[in-house]
Amino acid sequence: MSDLINKQIILKSRPVGEPKESDFALVETPTPEPGEGEILSRTIYLSLDPYMRGRISGGQSYAAPVELGSVIVGGTVSQVIKSNHPQFQVGDFVLNSNGWQTYAVSKGETLRKLDPTQAPLSYSLGVLGMPGLTAYAALLDIGQPKEGETVVVSAASGAVGAVVGQIAKIKGARVVGIVGSDDKRDYIVKELGFDVGINRKTQELDSALKEAAPNGIDVYYDNTAGVILETVLPQINLGARIPLVGLISEYNATSTPPGPNLMPLLIKRALIKGFLVSDYQHRFNDFLHDITGWLQSGQLKYKEDVVVGLENAPGAFIGLLRGDNFGKLIVKVNDDPTAA
Amino acid sequence: MSDLINKQIILKSRPVGEPKESDFALVETPTPEPGEGEILSRTIYLSLDPYMRGRISGGQSYAAPVELGSVIVGGTVSQVIKSNHPQFQVGDFVLNSNGWQTYAVSKGETLRKLDPTQAPLSYSLGVLGMPGLTAYAALLDIGQPKEGETVVVSAASGAVGAVVGQIAKIKGARVVGIVGSDDKRDYIVKELGFDVGINRKTQELDSALKEAAPNGIDVYYDNTAGVILETVLPQINLGARIPLVGLISEYNATSTPPGPNLMPLLIKRALIKGFLVSDYQHRFNDFLHDITGWLQSGQLKYKEDVVVGLENAPGAFIGLLRGDNFGKLIVKVNDDPTAA
Repeated sequence: MSDLINKQIILKSRPVGEPKESDFALVETPTPEPGEGEILSRTIYLSLDPYMRGRISGGQSYAAPVELGSVIVGGTVSQVIKSNHPQFQVGDFVLNSNGWQTYAVSKGETLRKLDPTQAPLSYSLGVLGMPGLTAYAALLDIGQPKEGETVVVSAASGAVGAVVGQIAKIKGARVVGIVGSDDKRDYIVKELGFDVGINRKTQELDSALKEAAPNGIDVYYDNTAGVILETVLPQINLGARIPLVGLISEYNATSTPPGPNLMPLLIKRALIKGFLVSDYQHRFNDFLHDITGWLQSGQLKYKEDVVVGLENAPGAFIGLLRGDNFGKLIVKVNDDPTAA
Repeated sequence: MSDLINKQIILKSRPVGEPKESDFALVETPTPEPGEGEILSRTIYLSLDPYMRGRISGGQSYAAPVELGSVIVGGTVSQVIKSNHPQFQVGDFVLNSNGWQTYAVSKGETLRKLDPTQAPLSYSLGVLGMPGLTAYAALLDIGQPKEGETVVVSAASGAVGAVVGQIAKIKGARVVGIVGSDDKRDYIVKELGFDVGINRKTQELDSALKEAAPNGIDVYYDNTAGVILETVLPQINLGARIPLVGLISEYNATSTPPGPNLMPLLIKRALIKGFLVSDYQHRFNDFLHDITGWLQSGQLKYKEDVVVGLENAPGAFIGLLRGDNFGKLIVKVNDDPTAA
């Protein structure tokens, strides 16, 4: 053990709803020595990010939960103070995941060396790091904003949202940001160049969005889900794209929100896509070719539920919505001269 | 006018909740004469489909609503009885949209001629028509089932669902169908070859799905939304695909269901896709190149909210979830020797 005292913040109890200070505890422990291929580093900057709420709640997520009594996880920038790894020298600055503590041992392979002459060290935890890549990749690869389209982003002054809006502007979109204070609204409009900022705490979101996005919404970059997503959905345009990146509105929830809980969509990087058959007329010939072949080979079976007489259409339709029909519901209005 | 009597079913009142017989009225009117380029046809088969519920409710949808007093829309197979169009002869069978009536005039350009020797005429309203194409294109182009994956489909014995499940079997997937009666469950398993059928009215859906899809759900072909979608979501696999094709559970709803209403996703053929930054490490170099350039050119601005001292991390984190921070939240744990 080193004679350095390591200060750590550990998870004392799993928060219920909004975390309390008493869910955390500051402890002091001896600082461990690095083993072969490892380094010991002093934490300079610790990143705090909303995803940590999921890690300390212990529920299903995309990564293992933080155990009770353990140091809370987190990305860090630190300086090497002892090294048993040939690629790192004492004094080097590295990006690693020391978590909420002042010292930590880490394996050399998991580190990225930082050059403080290129950018402030802390930027690697934000605009040049995970939040920046989150903004960049989800906006450009899923949102795919085009020139002249309208992009809406929630939590718009945050680490991710501020970058999303600015990249969308660079790509030529009209950009609307949703924030929680007038200061933040002023900031995203006056400093960052968003076209419109909406303070969801003082403005009526639905009408403010309609005014801010008069041509509808093409991309909604969703950091929050919840009521903002509900309000955005009726205003989306044909073929809109919604990268679901965060569910800040639900992180502190003590019960499952009503309606479909979208958390699994995020965790599983799944997609829901609306479908209307009229968009797929170009597939009609493939369809007819394949289906006819499968019908003829017996791989595909087909059942009809035929109701006789136009006057019976209303009753049959009412039953259809109840699921009373069995097979494709057809009304035989007049005799079929070709039927056997 | 012809001397034929045309029987029509018109919309008498907009249904509230489940439609009633009294929302419809059967009327008799003279049959119109076809004009230049038009044909007059006698309806043989009328297709009844759930989408019609949206058309008679008069709300926002992807097509114009049926007006009060007007004939209800619908796809039909009919026989030409008068023709002023060179491509159609009296006696020809055509696919058109006569709606809920016994005769109609239609423009030749909107018709497809049917060959009754190839398949029963009524099939063009089902497996060889719009419902079949809906099953085929949404499953194959959005759902993209792969061999060995698990596909779940709701309303599984219906015109669309039955075709979906069988195509998924042809593509080598494990197929689970959700239906509303034991008869239908037996049918999809014993007649259509689904691996498992679930009667949602008598079985507990959550546990039945877990048993039927022990490896999780890769594709959920959603004809219903509502509680079935809610139950499916927690059981989806990484990268799952959910074509949202119908919202049968909501068509009769008199109030907006709780939680995000997914109707706009369907109407606008939009997509929601979950995002996790760890999937996008391959974009890191592009990201760093672009972001660094934008920072240097001043097109991208970046603000940090720095809290000093590890002991202040819990309070700062609690504030982050409330939105108290302004800019990327960073804890300065030790002095930064590179900072000015």
